[in-house]
Amino acid sequence: MPSDLLSPVVAGTAAEEAASGEAWLRALLDAEAALARAQARLGVIPEGVAEAILATHVDLDDLAVRARAAGNPVVPLVADLRESAGEHVHRGATSQDIMDTAAMLVADRTRRIILADLARTADALAGLAREHRETPMAGRTFGQQAVPTTFGLRAAGWLTAVARAREALAGVRLPAQLGGAAGTMAAYGTTELLPVFAEETGLTEAVLPWHTLRAPVAELGAALALVAGALGKFATDVVTLAQTEIGEVAEPAAPGRGGSSAMPHKRNPVLATMIRSAALRVPAYAQILFASQVAGLERPAGEWHAEWLPLNDALRLTGGAAETAAELAGGLEVFPDRMRANLRDELLSEHVAAALARETGRAEADRAVAAALREGRPLRDLVPGGIDPADAVGLASELVDRALAAYTGQAGR
Amino acid sequence: MPSDLLSPVVAGTAAEEAASGEAWLRALLDAEAALARAQARLGVIPEGVAEAILATHVDLDDLAVRARAAGNPVVPLVADLRESAGEHVHRGATSQDIMDTAAMLVADRTRRIILADLARTADALAGLAREHRETPMAGRTFGQQAVPTTFGLRAAGWLTAVARAREALAGVRLPAQLGGAAGTMAAYGTTELLPVFAEETGLTEAVLPWHTLRAPVAELGAALALVAGALGKFATDVVTLAQTEIGEVAEPAAPGRGGSSAMPHKRNPVLATMIRSAALRVPAYAQILFASQVAGLERPAGEWHAEWLPLNDALRLTGGAAETAAELAGGLEVFPDRMRANLRDELLSEHVAAALARETGRAEADRAVAAALREGRPLRDLVPGGIDPADAVGLASELVDRALAAYTGQAGR
Amino acid sequence: MPSDLLSPVVAGTAAEEAASGEAWLRALLDAEAALARAQARLGVIPEGVAEAILATHVDLDDLAVRARAAGNPVVPLVADLRESAGEHVHRGATSQDIMDTAAMLVADRTRRIILADLARTADALAGLAREHRETPMAGRTFGQQAVPTTFGLRAAGWLTAVARAREALAGVRLPAQLGGAAGTMAAYGTTELLPVFAEETGLTEAVLPWHTLRAPVAELGAALALVAGALGKFATDVVTLAQTEIGEVAEPAAPGRGGSSAMPHKRNPVLATMIRSAALRVPAYAQILFASQVAGLERPAGEWHAEWLPLNDALRLTGGAAETAAELAGGLEVFPDRMRANLRDELLSEHVAAALARETGRAEADRAVAAALREGRPLRDLVPGGIDPADAVGLASELVDRALAAYTGQAGR
Amino acid sequence: MPSDLLSPVVAGTAAEEAASGEAWLRALLDAEAALARAQARLGVIPEGVAEAILATHVDLDDLAVRARAAGNPVVPLVADLRESAGEHVHRGATSQDIMDTAAMLVADRTRRIILADLARTADALAGLAREHRETPMAGRTFGQQAVPTTFGLRAAGWLTAVARAREALAGVRLPAQLGGAAGTMAAYGTTELLPVFAEETGLTEAVLPWHTLRAPVAELGAALALVAGALGKFATDVVTLAQTEIGEVAEPAAPGRGGSSAMPHKRNPVLATMIRSAALRVPAYAQILFASQVAGLERPAGEWHAEWLPLNDALRLTGGAAETAAELAGGLEVFPDRMRANLRDELLSEHVAAALARETGRAEADRAVAAALREGRPLRDLVPGGIDPADAVGLASELVDRALAAYTGQAGR
Repeated sequence: MPSDLLSPVVAGTAAEEAASGEAWLRALLDAEAALARAQARLGVIPEGVAEAILATHVDLDDLAVRARAAGNPVVPLVADLRESAGEHVHRGATSQDIMDTAAMLVADRTRRIILADLARTADALAGLAREHRETPMAGRTFGQQAVPTTFGLRAAGWLTAVARAREALAGVRLPAQLGGAAGTMAAYGTTELLPVFAEETGLTEAVLPWHTLRAPVAELGAALALVAGALGKFATDVVTLAQTEIGEVAEPAAPGRGGSSAMPHKRNPVLATMIRSAALRVPAYAQILFASQVAGLERPAGEWHAEWLPLNDALRLTGGAAETAAELAGGLEVFPDRMRANLRDELLSEHVAAALARETGRAEADRAVAAALREGRPLRDLVPGGIDPADAVGLASELVDRALAAYTGQAGR
Repeated sequence: MPSDLLSPVVAGTAAEEAASGEAWLRALLDAEAALARAQARLGVIPEGVAEAILATHVDLDDLAVRARAAGNPVVPLVADLRESAGEHVHRGATSQDIMDTAAMLVADRTRRIILADLARTADALAGLAREHRETPMAGRTFGQQAVPTTFGLRAAGWLTAVARAREALAGVRLPAQLGGAAGTMAAYGTTELLPVFAEETGLTEAVLPWHTLRAPVAELGAALALVAGALGKFATDVVTLAQTEIGEVAEPAAPGRGGSSAMPHKRNPVLATMIRSAALRVPAYAQILFASQVAGLERPAGEWHAEWLPLNDALRLTGGAAETAAELAGGLEVFPDRMRANLRDELLSEHVAAALARETGRAEADRAVAAALREGRPLRDLVPGGIDPADAVGLASELVDRALAAYTGQAGR
Repeated sequence: MPSDLLSPVVAGTAAEEAASGEAWLRALLDAEAALARAQARLGVIPEGVAEAILATHVDLDDLAVRARAAGNPVVPLVADLRESAGEHVHRGATSQDIMDTAAMLVADRTRRIILADLARTADALAGLAREHRETPMAGRTFGQQAVPTTFGLRAAGWLTAVARAREALAGVRLPAQLGGAAGTMAAYGTTELLPVFAEETGLTEAVLPWHTLRAPVAELGAALALVAGALGKFATDVVTLAQTEIGEVAEPAAPGRGGSSAMPHKRNPVLATMIRSAALRVPAYAQILFASQVAGLERPAGEWHAEWLPLNDALRLTGGAAETAAELAGGLEVFPDRMRANLRDELLSEHVAAALARETGRAEADRAVAAALREGRPLRDLVPGGIDPADAVGLASELVDRALAAYTGQAGR
Repeated sequence: MPSDLLSPVVAGTAAEEAASGEAWLRALLDAEAALARAQARLGVIPEGVAEAILATHVDLDDLAVRARAAGNPVVPLVADLRESAGEHVHRGATSQDIMDTAAMLVADRTRRIILADLARTADALAGLAREHRETPMAGRTFGQQAVPTTFGLRAAGWLTAVARAREALAGVRLPAQLGGAAGTMAAYGTTELLPVFAEETGLTEAVLPWHTLRAPVAELGAALALVAGALGKFATDVVTLAQTEIGEVAEPAAPGRGGSSAMPHKRNPVLATMIRSAALRVPAYAQILFASQVAGLERPAGEWHAEWLPLNDALRLTGGAAETAAELAGGLEVFPDRMRANLRDELLSEHVAAALARETGRAEADRAVAAALREGRPLRDLVPGGIDPADAVGLASELVDRALAAYTGQAGR
């Protein structure tokens, strides 16, 4: 399987293999074999067909080119399988039954990998939240230092987003497809096949054939975009916090990683960059999947075919991003001293104004703070006894605890 | 409130009003008032502030223009409210707390309308599925007649898609926002405010301030795109089935509807057209919301601001489409005679080939069908005793029953 | 005209007015009037109809709601105009002729404003490039200081992008639409009407009626997305360079601008934020316009209707961003001292390695630089006589000159 | 090179090969070699380096996986090339110089193929327009028969859209990239390299290094989306006109094409379906490219990396669609008899009303037509002497001539 030269975030990851051309071919064969097993269980066809299907060698490249004649790879595949495994192959089925079921199998297999990587990521982030529960740093809005926060709260935010997205992805139902030529199951003969086929594939049983009811694909795309977004948020923050002028975190070092041939001093946040490269693409792929719901009558001329590549890319890219994020979260270097050193006095303006307001009223307090800012006098001296930024982090620690409790509760289910 | 000249699908609908500029202003005031009530309950501020907030007159147009100075309308609004309702207004809050809470209020209020219209739509579709459980018609794939199906099964498919999308929309959690300047709640003083504020707004309590954890907005966008897609599928099928050459359904007639100034004979499927116009846009709006998850640090410089309009458009357009779909489904004219007349003999090819295969084996059956097709002989005569297309609709009726049972079960929850 | 509460980038700008509901109504009337004038010139209808059309009062809100019956506002508008201006109104026309022509008129009028604001922006950026032709600053890649550059080169880059996008927008052809019921011009009677109508509208003459050949709309969307992207690049750089920890530029100050109610010390880059909020949305709107090219037969049931709102939003948002960018570029504060102070010694690694390589060969040079970096010794001391970062800006000044020459040449055309 | 199992529109086409992983590797080597040749011409490095580069064997799959360390494949490639071709390789360059130049080379090479296929498509469509200049058929709006048109005018519309899109694609400037570490060309030493490198690559010379000025990529994406849209319009019309109930055109027959394993009678419009599958995806890819213009400072952490795959997919899919469209247009079967048979009497309503209005005034004419429609009397009999739909095609033939003249003129340039 050749790796994707144009998507380093994916190249060589487990998700790349799980959503490769070979994996699709395997899933197509698995779908045909599951159908044969299910029909044999119901006595519709003889035993042994599934085994013959799975033993068939199919040339992937050749199959892809032959797919042009019918617009999908199942038609030429079935021709081959009827040669090797006999006429009972694909009994009563239409191409879409097999292609959709294969898509769900690929999705299911890739999802397992993604969920595991998200769990690793979330665990690492929970560890950071716990460890840095009290580590003060600047909260920044619009790129400007705003008020103090803690690195623990920031990590708790990343954790909450990742855990929420993981839950959404885990919850997507992936149904087997079985409708026949136009969704009436006419040539299958019995709806008893629905649960049996679902069981043989390990997928969910749908209420109806969903050939043109594309919610499963659209919901999957949405969940992947949610995951990619949560990872993209984490990665974007890492890039910013790792800026030369901020320097509060660094990516885990590895030989050769983040290097530049021209600039020996550079250590680029390459893990975060790759994650972002995925997060910037997946929403557009999800959008194609949403739009493909508008699928005419019993099979549309294009909307269905348009789904396969973006669905697969959404799986691959999200998977590559999740594997990369697990590495990033697991090895993130955190520099509390630099965080503290970066804290500016003016960060205290809200805190000091509030403290003064309790004494003098709001209007007077605002005037005092504004005057100090204008004259360059330290705000911390306006409050009797002074104040340390670490005292101004509000309820950050309590919020960290809420996030960790929710995460533990979620994982504990 | 001026109606949207460029979106007839929305103009004059209940969703347009629920997601109008006036509705946003009301929601902003409601958010500030809920905060005041919550803080009064906790004894942080005196009673009466909420009432003063709600009694304040604000000029919407003026507010919009003043919003440019800070990039959001809350800053000028708070300035006005401090004039009218005193310094306790907006205590401890940041603009985003109010703006996000208002967005969730607008979403919640518009969602109620959408859910009701989707229920009406689904009920009407269930009625069609029941009534036409046995009505035979051509199943069409790639625009070509494929095998017979029933209108009941088609309606059951629309129903299933709409009901599933409705369930997804109903399930989206809409949390109140309360984080303060950078999400530490520093100036609020206590996390006890979280449940109390949620209660006062009628929204969900979030685990953490979600100022840069945008899953609520992204999930809402996804659910709206799912709804728009389900409605778009329905509308697309109506447009095709209403084609002059097919003529199997017609939109409900109304004086002046679907007319053309140039062509007195025309009756355009204008309800379906408007629904499709929404379905073709909402996925792109959802994509902006997905992409906006990549929100830097404690407040991004643009990603947050980019959400408001597409979120609102997704609400308005989906709402307009749902109201329009309820009317379309409720009044759809169905022409069973035309459906039967349109059925072509060649639709029976799968059925006849299968019947013959049971007698002669597959290869021989395929040959016989191919010969008849080539020579223009009716396929129905290949089977002893002939065959009626209505006999070839497979398990359509049983599938209709599955869909109706699932719908009833879902609604019964 | 109420301003857009959800798009501060647009609120109160000239583009908002040029692309308002009122502006569309005016353009619809102008299109009908231009048709009447053109037909009167050809002797097809009497004189005076155009004047009667333009004198008609139409209620915008009422028109929007009545548009639902036909799916577009032209049908009810024509009904009104035939009351007020007689039966010669809209002679031979179809709704799409008027709606598309009106869209092009709105686009043309808004484009003039955008082009002027882009010219102001470009001129200001050219001034910055000239003024800071030699101002050294850190070049940053992946957020990391890389090698020295100049602020002049950076401004020259912004200039080049804006000027190129402006050229693309100016070059988009905006044709009048005239096809009749299905594009055959049957009821118009003569193709002579094409140039005359184009002349009366001030728009371009199309080769064919373009009712379902949507390149004009798609190309306009693309050009707007190009402009929004160029402005978004500029704004994004401003946000980063204005970060507390970098502080190399600041937005122009204005009373109340960029303020925060909670944090008196904050000065948010609100102009750049608003520009970015537009740049993050316009690509999605352009995508809808691209997708709407797939418009079936002589008029699609939805794709056409889906264009209006995103086209208008793309115009409004790009226009608002351009007006905002002109203000930002015109008043940008630049801090050369801070730029110099921020320059790190390690920025010289490429320069020093190259200098050493000329003496000792590449391998030895790389070793020496690596050793110095590892040991924390200043790179500048590796080169006899030392080196100033300002000496390491390469061909920056020459490149600034190229950009300015190209801009002058372009403008001079 | 394995073919794309998930994109039959691409599998086995010339564009697939031109935009394959192997083609990218070749382009990367070509870019490095062109740089070496250019620098040798300027005397900066010795002769022979380019030849050594081109003679180097690189394992594509291995390179893709190694690309993860730096986030792009150039860093490991340069390491290999310095082994094989010495230290003068990549002199003064940064990864982006090579990657962007390679992207433009791949784009240029794929574009040649696309332009040739579009020319074949346009020529075939021009032939259809000429041949069927007078062939009457129903014009259809919203799926409803509207007024008569000709197949020639419809083909002329397809031609005009394709020719316009082809012109746009041909006009996109594809510049070489040469900026060095941060766009200052510091390590290149001279801007003389810009024209020489451009010449060696066969690409355009840019005014400035465009590392973060991404108009070339965005404009390319826009042009590809324009092409895909024009082809998608053509394909959508073919699908509709080939519907069982309309049957006015058919795709070119080929052994096995359009077949269905379940339904021997089916002949699916598979070429049009594949074209549509591309047209439904390319706009989303273009959108990613538009959004990637917002590229921070001297190199963004992700926006650049997000471009490669969608750019390549836009090239591949548009190329596959163009090759498919050339085959579809070249062999389209047209059935004038069916077109005539499908024409309904009510199509004449506009024509008859206009004819009567000249005698009796508009109001009376409208009444007469409405009465006939209501009573089911043929409209054609309302006009003395009757009327044939072919007489009611308006200016269709003249418009065909305009389109052909414009096409000839364009091609003749």
